[in-house]
Amino acid sequence: MSEPTLADKQLFLDMAIAEAVCGVRAGQGGPFGAVVVKDGIVIAKAANAVVANHDPTAHAEVQAIRAACVVLGSFQLEGCDIYASCEPCPMCLGAILWARPRALYFAATRQHAAAAGFDDAAFYETLAGESGASPIVREQVPCDDAGAPFAVYASLPGRVRY
Amino acid sequence: MSEPTLADKQLFLDMAIAEAVCGVRAGQGGPFGAVVVKDGIVIAKAANAVVANHDPTAHAEVQAIRAACVVLGSFQLEGCDIYASCEPCPMCLGAILWARPRALYFAATRQHAAAAGFDDAAFYETLAGESGASPIVREQVPCDDAGAPFAVYASLPGRVRY
Repeated sequence: MSEPTLADKQLFLDMAIAEAVCGVRAGQGGPFGAVVVKDGIVIAKAANAVVANHDPTAHAEVQAIRAACVVLGSFQLEGCDIYASCEPCPMCLGAILWARPRALYFAATRQHAAAAGFDDAAFYETLAGESGASPIVREQVPCDDAGAPFAVYASLPGRVRY
Repeated sequence: MSEPTLADKQLFLDMAIAEAVCGVRAGQGGPFGAVVVKDGIVIAKAANAVVANHDPTAHAEVQAIRAACVVLGSFQLEGCDIYASCEPCPMCLGAILWARPRALYFAATRQHAAAAGFDDAAFYETLAGESGASPIVREQVPCDDAGAPFAVYASLPGRVRY
């Protein structure tokens, strides 16, 4: 698989941007779109649908990853490129890392999203432990059986890694 | 809504741990479970189902959040507590922040997950920009229309914030 040229990247990002605009006009959710490309072919695209789906995880990148995985019948996006209209939030960047595509290209930045009133940049600070207060209580609780799931997993002969 | 006691927390975490063990035994995915509680009542629970669902985003917390939001008919988990058998990965912590529950309680830590071969801790370093190399290419590409979705969103009179 050859790497995309600048013109290729801009073409697919323009598609992600168009997806974002359509999603906003349809009242689906926030102004974000994403496209997944494999071997030069678009295999999935999605807009943010948090509001329409009543689902805080229905960001464009998550929706596009899920759709692309259905197409490929795999939980990994091997050899795929993800194009996002805006720099992914921490949830979406985490989802992208787990999906293990070849590359992520994006147009706008987390600062653009912050200027539009979204918490992407703030959540990056929370995850990095840089902001003073966490917006929610987060507490580790001692539990005798905390290690049990890992022990069962380790003893499973046919376990699949992801 | 009163805050849970230590015994409450351990009870719900034991449920999340049991969910994780069941999921592993069923071959659904990794050794992780999560439970969502509102007013002392479990409204959703889930185990990791990455392998069974062919979905890299089907972590226990994401699945439980999605299920709880269906129950509540809302994209926010207002007044809810999330119990996770293990400290959430960056994707899941991002999802939790967007869902805006009251609290997150967890049993095992990201170090436990790392010891079991999972990339949670490594991905936290990637998101914080602390690790030297990103596991995937990440590039911002200049696009003339990068601001268009935000402009359309800003002009929408009935837009819903999340």
